[in-house]
Amino acid sequence: MSSPLRLGIAGLGTVGIGVVKIVQKHADLLAKRSGRGIAITAISARDRMKNRDADISAYRWESDPMAVAQAGDVDIYVELIGGDNGIARDSIEAALRSGKDVVTANKALLAMHGQELAELAESLGRVIRFEAAVAGGIPVIKTMTESLAGNGITRVMGVMNGTCNYILTRMENAGLPYEAVFEEARQLGYLEADPNLDVGGIDAGHKLAILSSIAFGTRVNFDAVEIEGIERISIDDIRRAADMGYRIKLLGIAQMTPRGLEQRMSPCLVPADSPIGQLAGGTNMVVVEGDSVGQIVLRGAGAGEGPTASAVMSDIVEIARGVRMPVFGQPAADLEPAQPARTAVPAAYYIRLELQDKPGALAKVAAILGDAGISIDRMRQYGHASDSSVPVLVVTHKTTPEAIDFAIEALPRTGVLVSDPVELRIEEV
Amino acid sequence: MSSPLRLGIAGLGTVGIGVVKIVQKHADLLAKRSGRGIAITAISARDRMKNRDADISAYRWESDPMAVAQAGDVDIYVELIGGDNGIARDSIEAALRSGKDVVTANKALLAMHGQELAELAESLGRVIRFEAAVAGGIPVIKTMTESLAGNGITRVMGVMNGTCNYILTRMENAGLPYEAVFEEARQLGYLEADPNLDVGGIDAGHKLAILSSIAFGTRVNFDAVEIEGIERISIDDIRRAADMGYRIKLLGIAQMTPRGLEQRMSPCLVPADSPIGQLAGGTNMVVVEGDSVGQIVLRGAGAGEGPTASAVMSDIVEIARGVRMPVFGQPAADLEPAQPARTAVPAAYYIRLELQDKPGALAKVAAILGDAGISIDRMRQYGHASDSSVPVLVVTHKTTPEAIDFAIEALPRTGVLVSDPVELRIEEV
Repeated sequence: MSSPLRLGIAGLGTVGIGVVKIVQKHADLLAKRSGRGIAITAISARDRMKNRDADISAYRWESDPMAVAQAGDVDIYVELIGGDNGIARDSIEAALRSGKDVVTANKALLAMHGQELAELAESLGRVIRFEAAVAGGIPVIKTMTESLAGNGITRVMGVMNGTCNYILTRMENAGLPYEAVFEEARQLGYLEADPNLDVGGIDAGHKLAILSSIAFGTRVNFDAVEIEGIERISIDDIRRAADMGYRIKLLGIAQMTPRGLEQRMSPCLVPADSPIGQLAGGTNMVVVEGDSVGQIVLRGAGAGEGPTASAVMSDIVEIARGVRMPVFGQPAADLEPAQPARTAVPAAYYIRLELQDKPGALAKVAAILGDAGISIDRMRQYGHASDSSVPVLVVTHKTTPEAIDFAIEALPRTGVLVSDPVELRIEEV
Repeated sequence: MSSPLRLGIAGLGTVGIGVVKIVQKHADLLAKRSGRGIAITAISARDRMKNRDADISAYRWESDPMAVAQAGDVDIYVELIGGDNGIARDSIEAALRSGKDVVTANKALLAMHGQELAELAESLGRVIRFEAAVAGGIPVIKTMTESLAGNGITRVMGVMNGTCNYILTRMENAGLPYEAVFEEARQLGYLEADPNLDVGGIDAGHKLAILSSIAFGTRVNFDAVEIEGIERISIDDIRRAADMGYRIKLLGIAQMTPRGLEQRMSPCLVPADSPIGQLAGGTNMVVVEGDSVGQIVLRGAGAGEGPTASAVMSDIVEIARGVRMPVFGQPAADLEPAQPARTAVPAAYYIRLELQDKPGALAKVAAILGDAGISIDRMRQYGHASDSSVPVLVVTHKTTPEAIDFAIEALPRTGVLVSDPVELRIEEV
């Protein structure tokens, strides 16, 4: 058996400690499976004195992650600091330049700078692996780069932010408004330091951009992801959707079309009894469609200590086994910049409006939709929101996003709207 | 870029032709993803003149698979002949001995002789890969050997025979008896040449034995799998199960217990709205539970040209990329023989009886169940099957398999049974 593979871990939050625990608990199993021992030599985190749920006294403490990245007794630099720039990026570059392979869970960094990092790693003959960056413990990166290597990928989609899914599920189950559940999630520690990364759809958008790159052999392009968060979703929307047999999910879809690459992360209505509709709490699901394999569905915990550390460990074991692969599954230099395309596939839409309670209001809305070329499947007034306004729900027949945009822009000009309309695509996933 | 990797393919049925098509269609993509070209040099199949759905004229035809296995211009021997002995086994051994790596979809061979083949391959420094052997296009082998390498696996279960799932789904949807749907499946070409491999649960049992070996680091032991087929399942069972909110699935479960390794493949009742209960037609699902990752669910097509060929290609690309791994994820010499254990976990059971239509019959049944220590959740008589007999359904509270065996053996001695009882476990998966 070869000499042990030596890890240097920067960042000892939930995931970092999870990795330490696995290395300690499963030393024998990891050695059998890797063909060599796996040892931790150096660690670094912000607060040395913090009470941690693992004994880290045997590892050399470095106050600067750079010292771990450049240590002579480290083979793999495990970056679990996070952030799309600063020390996370600097230390990864330093680790690569000092001859180390890198394992990271940093989706933001890969979504923003994955191309440069991949080119740097490949020019230096190093690997970067990042299974934990997308969908926690679900092996989606490996499935796409390896298991589906014989497929032209046609579409990838999924629910990839457990916090948003928790909020939406909890709103429905408890009948609570968005603000109350958001506050709950904050107190439970489910939200990122900047909650907009979660509820604004940005974290999930980072993940989708990474998957797109692997799926279509294109340079990761986060800026081209159409992103909409869940902040506008009200308990009324959730109830109306449920009445019609749907659930609202923050759903990402990426597909290559003749017009270019569509990447969209937005709240959608999906059938309540579909696999995606049934996803509860922090569970994630990724669906990949390939021209040979058909549809592959992967489901599991999207976050948390154990699942995310499991993904990090799978990358470490791969490197220990001697597996060397291009970062995005093919050489970074070969990745093409994709032509971004706005979503154009027609769909039915859900539109919730708050109208002034006066004669002719509905007729004005119907006229606008007609002008936009949108035909109405259902239109229904729900009680009275107040003395002076009424909530109205419209479900359209299949129409284009352009027609919906036209209508949404035109609707306020009717003068009968009390608040901004909420429009959501209905995806029959 | 290195020289092309040269394939020799033995067996040009559905899967073999699927592989040929992918190599032809995706030559550029495969080269980018593998870092080298992938070329077919030699092929072999039973009937050279058969009309095939791909142009194979550019490849050297060998009438004997052995010639492909031993050819000087072949790097990977792709065995798609099938069968747990004979030419499939002989040619794989010959290929290994002549310095080739092997990719196969042959579950029977691996379940019966996987240990010897793995030891041979590893002693020669060769690899055998077999993603296509279990659950078609679903990347279950890779997920277990690689993605979950940092986990102690606690349980693996799933629906792994698409033909059985097709038959059970079709019986329920069309309200047809087993025999009629079996005949349909035969005419559609869904059944193996020996249909007992499918409906007898043997094919699915082979797959479970392979997964057990990887999950628990044990030598594959097919003979220890408790196997029951679907032949006894009647349309009545399916209807009674549906009435109670269940579906019947041929479900495999393997788990390591303090008493030893439980491996069971048998028809079970599962909740109709559970992910496994919702599996329709030829779709497969595998659920793996790890001590860090929690539960991972993988779903996809379990058979067919495209999905199975996709799995074969993923193995080929891995070898092309230079990935070398022990056959079962850790060296074959380290795999321990497992102590087989019969299923002991208690469960509720479904028991269907056909009783003589005379006073006291039900009381006699209830007395036997009481003697066995089984308490009854529900007991119900369903109309009259004929003038002289009545079908009776019993659902028990949780009880042990031993208690059920005791009762099933004792029931005929009441003298009130018209036919053999049918008992099925209820798994709350």
